[in-house]
Amino acid sequence: MKKLWLVYVVLIGFFIVYVLNYRLQTNSKDPWEKTGLRGNLEDTYVMVTFQTGIDYWKSILKGFEDGAEELNVSVEYHGSTKHNASEQMTVLEQVISKKPAGIAISAVNSELLTATINKAVESGIPVVLFDSGAPDSKAYSYLGTDNYNAGVEAARKMAELTGATGQVAIVTTPDQHNHQERTDGFCDTIQKEFPYMKVVAVEDGRGDLVFSRQAAEQILSSYPEVKGIFATESNGGIGVAEAVDAHSGVSLKIISFDTDKRTLDLVKSGTISATMAQGTWNMGYWSLMQLFRLHRDLAVDPLAYSNSKLVPVPDVVDTGIDVVTRNNVDNYYAK
Amino acid sequence: MKKLWLVYVVLIGFFIVYVLNYRLQTNSKDPWEKTGLRGNLEDTYVMVTFQTGIDYWKSILKGFEDGAEELNVSVEYHGSTKHNASEQMTVLEQVISKKPAGIAISAVNSELLTATINKAVESGIPVVLFDSGAPDSKAYSYLGTDNYNAGVEAARKMAELTGATGQVAIVTTPDQHNHQERTDGFCDTIQKEFPYMKVVAVEDGRGDLVFSRQAAEQILSSYPEVKGIFATESNGGIGVAEAVDAHSGVSLKIISFDTDKRTLDLVKSGTISATMAQGTWNMGYWSLMQLFRLHRDLAVDPLAYSNSKLVPVPDVVDTGIDVVTRNNVDNYYAK
Repeated sequence: MKKLWLVYVVLIGFFIVYVLNYRLQTNSKDPWEKTGLRGNLEDTYVMVTFQTGIDYWKSILKGFEDGAEELNVSVEYHGSTKHNASEQMTVLEQVISKKPAGIAISAVNSELLTATINKAVESGIPVVLFDSGAPDSKAYSYLGTDNYNAGVEAARKMAELTGATGQVAIVTTPDQHNHQERTDGFCDTIQKEFPYMKVVAVEDGRGDLVFSRQAAEQILSSYPEVKGIFATESNGGIGVAEAVDAHSGVSLKIISFDTDKRTLDLVKSGTISATMAQGTWNMGYWSLMQLFRLHRDLAVDPLAYSNSKLVPVPDVVDTGIDVVTRNNVDNYYAK
Repeated sequence: MKKLWLVYVVLIGFFIVYVLNYRLQTNSKDPWEKTGLRGNLEDTYVMVTFQTGIDYWKSILKGFEDGAEELNVSVEYHGSTKHNASEQMTVLEQVISKKPAGIAISAVNSELLTATINKAVESGIPVVLFDSGAPDSKAYSYLGTDNYNAGVEAARKMAELTGATGQVAIVTTPDQHNHQERTDGFCDTIQKEFPYMKVVAVEDGRGDLVFSRQAAEQILSSYPEVKGIFATESNGGIGVAEAVDAHSGVSLKIISFDTDKRTLDLVKSGTISATMAQGTWNMGYWSLMQLFRLHRDLAVDPLAYSNSKLVPVPDVVDTGIDVVTRNNVDNYYAK
């Protein structure tokens, strides 16, 4: 009797072990389902900027980190502390030497950084550019704002705010290419789409609050009828807002650029009517997605794309532009 | 003695069960790692085209399917059999009624399809456009070729092939907007970058082999010195190739467009010097990636993006252009 008991227990034990082991195997390798897109935490994707401390990069880094968290990979953030090409080149060299799984870089100077970017690509590291590109480099993609289109959108918003009639002006930084594109998009659109509007002045604010304030005062005294000013960057927008605040009785629509806290506060208070928000989160998130895709091929063969250009990522990604007004400003404060 | 044996066996059995159960739990839910991006096979993403049978869509659908396989979601392919807007609208209505997880559509007519696309978006279905867009619709993104840039690249290749001197001509379909953009990019680039080249003729080939052949014969008799012809679509390229073949003694560089089998064969044989390959796989793959990202938010709240435009996908994706020559043509045959 007792011997039979023993046999039963041993058999039941084997059965339980068998069932559990089977569940363990099917769980880790279900033949009917894919495991999804998932990397290794040891794979590090690096985001490289310049003036690393400024607020502007935060939302881009958030997108980069969100992508990395979804894909179970790691992120590092590096860059030059100043607006300095040789410092950024040194940082990039250091990053390359660690053989990361991918690099997303905003080039402080498109020409000076090209050689170092190419070195990374030639050593088999996936590289994409965001926000500030290097069109002649071998990087696989560029993700950023279509600045001409941002000017187009700003002009249409200005027309909506001013009833599509009257004089408007621009405060910009003419020697920066992206700012010139915003100005061109604005001017072309006013001319093409709004026959009762006219751009009467394009002034240089030098990307500086004080100079922009002076430029706006100049506009207000030369053109007292002016109904709106478009500032192509945020210091300019704040300078224009101060100039308008100082002129009592002036009711003028201001459209600014970007979403730093001071600008958003002025949108909330109504001094600035609208600001153009760049798709910064998109720049970071989709940079990471592209690098992850490239890494899979290049980890196997660093020369995977050298024979032809059949590259599995787009050439250019326009990350979009949003118009921020009092109605939706709360969505744009950093979280 | 036998009782002790029994106790041992039972204890060892419990221990094995405990260990296996622990491994089972840690395997399915490792607290240190993310599960990655992974959907459900019940989620169906639909690609909608027109003239569903043509070869051109195959590589786009392959990209769409590759993305779906990676993410463990399902794909369906629908569309109008003809180049017909009302037929495509009916198909799109049927797709919407099944509440898919996302729709990627190439609009046969941007204006006529806009209302139905908006209906899908308003009912909470993520929609992106590819290849042929609908700029005034509420779709979240557009993924396709920058046709002006394709013309720029074609002009540079033509300059390389002809030594950047002499007469060149174009055979195109002037009443199609994307073909006009390719023509403009080509002409502007020759004028700006190559002072010793000149575009002497832009002829209408009507997207048809026979008409394009006649157009090329016209060019050859009017401009016997012509050194190259750019055809903005593949039927035109084949027509031009036939005209050149018929004129014995004519040595002329032909650049065509797209990568159907006949065009690739002519590249391989050397009759066509180069053809411009669109980033079709990218259109499909990145459409799926964007829809997957949008679905996660919109499945929870169909109005997630209605209050502001903080949308987690780019506005426009330029899927790129490759120059295909004899050297890399083998990479472009459909697999």
